[in-house]
Amino acid sequence: MPQGKVDPANIPDDGLTTKQRRLLPITAVHTGPGKGKSTAAFGMAMRAWNQGMKVGVFQFVKSAKWKVGEEAVFRRLGELEPGSVEWHKMGEGWSWAKKQGSDEDHAQDARDGWEEVKRRLMAEEHDFYVLDEFTYPIKWGWIDVDDVVETLRNRPGTQHVVITGRDADPKLIEVADLVTEMTKIKHPMDVGRKGQKGIEW
Amino acid sequence: MPQGKVDPANIPDDGLTTKQRRLLPITAVHTGPGKGKSTAAFGMAMRAWNQGMKVGVFQFVKSAKWKVGEEAVFRRLGELEPGSVEWHKMGEGWSWAKKQGSDEDHAQDARDGWEEVKRRLMAEEHDFYVLDEFTYPIKWGWIDVDDVVETLRNRPGTQHVVITGRDADPKLIEVADLVTEMTKIKHPMDVGRKGQKGIEW
Repeated sequence: MPQGKVDPANIPDDGLTTKQRRLLPITAVHTGPGKGKSTAAFGMAMRAWNQGMKVGVFQFVKSAKWKVGEEAVFRRLGELEPGSVEWHKMGEGWSWAKKQGSDEDHAQDARDGWEEVKRRLMAEEHDFYVLDEFTYPIKWGWIDVDDVVETLRNRPGTQHVVITGRDADPKLIEVADLVTEMTKIKHPMDVGRKGQKGIEW
Repeated sequence: MPQGKVDPANIPDDGLTTKQRRLLPITAVHTGPGKGKSTAAFGMAMRAWNQGMKVGVFQFVKSAKWKVGEEAVFRRLGELEPGSVEWHKMGEGWSWAKKQGSDEDHAQDARDGWEEVKRRLMAEEHDFYVLDEFTYPIKWGWIDVDDVVETLRNRPGTQHVVITGRDADPKLIEVADLVTEMTKIKHPMDVGRKGQKGIEW
């Protein structure tokens, strides 16, 4: 594992100390058609929680049935030390919204979610954000990618943001520090196998 | 998400019911040079734990310093319902071994680890195994890939196994049901940034 090793020729001329560079906010994108995009993001969130961070998960999907396992574990962790967890999903209407999610206007629900995330970023409400499947409302034109990019660039403090979903916009890739593409090499459903308990949910 | 949807032309002629096909053991491999291989495996293990499964994690690396966050969370979960967690690492000598890990013979330590995993698989001691960074001792010729493949093929019951690490042997890919490659598109350390608390550990 070469992690932590630094090529002396590659130390940035940014005037920061090593310690300061360890506290920079990271924007990560997990994209591509393979599995593991969200799962790896939740694994990172688990680690952040363990560091005492305030984790906020925002699921930008209407049906969240495949994330019940993660949600259950995080709700459990949220009750314990060291960190805290908030888990919000669009599927049932955002929890902070007074109204139920409007079945007829997913675009508006997605925009409401983004406005709330933006507000929290500006207020530094969390240390670690998972914007799960956030690439889709951007792809569908519901949320303006330039607004997302500008908000991410200008967010205060050291808040980390992880965005998941296929087909990440090139501007999102551009603004991100860490981009991983998950590629499907082989999938059991390709040969007609069913989703497995403990694997898919 | 097309998960759970079945192409009727693609239902296997295996004589199994849908329910039986939902209880098949899965062998998954997370490989490639990108991040998220282990993190996604631990995320799956978290889900398996939530399903009440007995999770066994086996870390086939000498230095495990980058997995302390996951280990801490899993130890925490291991004390709670619904599932159970055992976390074993080669780094300090396998916990079941009487002796400390031999600094001079990593190959033997890796083989000892595999023999124990094999024994547990035959005894069905866990429901969900993470063999973290297991591709490396195979790649280095310390563990015979044919033995691994045969053991995985012949394991009893419905035990799931997830293997992580770069450069997975083609025979491992062949025996796996689910293979995902993580590709690095962009990494902050490429531009001289340091590992971040809550991101790398």
